[in-house]
Amino acid sequence: MSTDAVPAVVLLSGGLDSATALAIARERGFICHALSVDYGQRHLAELDAARRVARASGVREHRIMRVDLAGIGGSALTDPAVAVPVEPTSGIPVTYVPARNTLMLALALGWAEVLEARHIFIGVNVLDSSGYPDCRAEFIEAFERLAALATRAGVEGQPCHIEAPLIAMTKAEIIREGTRLGVDYGATVSCYQADSQGRACGRCDACRLRLAGFDAAGFADPTRYQRP
Amino acid sequence: MSTDAVPAVVLLSGGLDSATALAIARERGFICHALSVDYGQRHLAELDAARRVARASGVREHRIMRVDLAGIGGSALTDPAVAVPVEPTSGIPVTYVPARNTLMLALALGWAEVLEARHIFIGVNVLDSSGYPDCRAEFIEAFERLAALATRAGVEGQPCHIEAPLIAMTKAEIIREGTRLGVDYGATVSCYQADSQGRACGRCDACRLRLAGFDAAGFADPTRYQRP
Repeated sequence: MSTDAVPAVVLLSGGLDSATALAIARERGFICHALSVDYGQRHLAELDAARRVARASGVREHRIMRVDLAGIGGSALTDPAVAVPVEPTSGIPVTYVPARNTLMLALALGWAEVLEARHIFIGVNVLDSSGYPDCRAEFIEAFERLAALATRAGVEGQPCHIEAPLIAMTKAEIIREGTRLGVDYGATVSCYQADSQGRACGRCDACRLRLAGFDAAGFADPTRYQRP
Repeated sequence: MSTDAVPAVVLLSGGLDSATALAIARERGFICHALSVDYGQRHLAELDAARRVARASGVREHRIMRVDLAGIGGSALTDPAVAVPVEPTSGIPVTYVPARNTLMLALALGWAEVLEARHIFIGVNVLDSSGYPDCRAEFIEAFERLAALATRAGVEGQPCHIEAPLIAMTKAEIIREGTRLGVDYGATVSCYQADSQGRACGRCDACRLRLAGFDAAGFADPTRYQRP
């Protein structure tokens, strides 16, 4: 199927993974409508990165929707009272944001329905990830089944597909693929506690995964760090 | 199972159905945390009604979360450019808000996880409803399956149940049940285009369903109308 002029909604966090997912959606020929969600995350540098990536990637438009998840707390990423861990942890870490990907996909689904888009791209991946439940293939499949029942388009036989092109890739494979597609990883921010200039801590789980990924991919890491 | 001191999140729109769902949750013994969503709906009188119902119902707390669905448009309820129909329509009407119940359940799921609540109440019903896809039992069941995969609690064997006690009830049955439980329907607002005093138009789909429900239940309708 040619995807000429076919619209897609792409969830864009400003991190490495979603920037790569966007590049893949563009390569497949989709007209991309990027959606970022300001959910009260402590690392607002992410949203600045999302703006840079959207500008550099030729998206049709970029919207930032605000949802106050900080009001319910429960995560190191939204609650200043919970510290971001700087050592590896086992199980689901405190950086897990309750129902985050469910919420982001719900917002994307609403916008997709208005745009008559039948594809939503999300940059989740389960290998080299932090063990979040809503990054797994079974979660993505369950959301796709839900979407077919949830929407006017689904009921009318035009269900929305949830595209997770990175889901089975290692971080190194993601970085190699994005580099091939011209992603400027220097524009992205992965750190859970980047400073206001977007400089990474180099110590949190997200930084460790990113550093190990560049190392394994054999590319120089363009990330700017808070200390040399 | 005794539900003494067991918490539940109850989605509360300010309309007749969710006020009844809240009364049912209370009768079952749940400690109720009411959640209303300000999604840019044109009928803000609904949120005032939600505050009145929450106050009158002895909920533990009531939160109003803001999400800017008006930014994506696509519905007569959020987009001033789309008129609310005052005649019966066939199919899914323009008052359908894209992915609304998916989004509301996602927000409720996030809060439930923080509260360690394993029950979410939603007042959807499919009989005497407006034909929205996300009010059907198969949608609710699909969301419950998603929730079990989406959350830390679900992964740890404590999935969240989506309780839709009104799903198979007629509007008249809902009104009879709520009246038995002491719901003050005069505090609720169902109209899609209520004025700033919460007075109903008497002509839109929601008003027609409500009027017919009171008529069939054999109770006086306490709704205040814009014209006599």
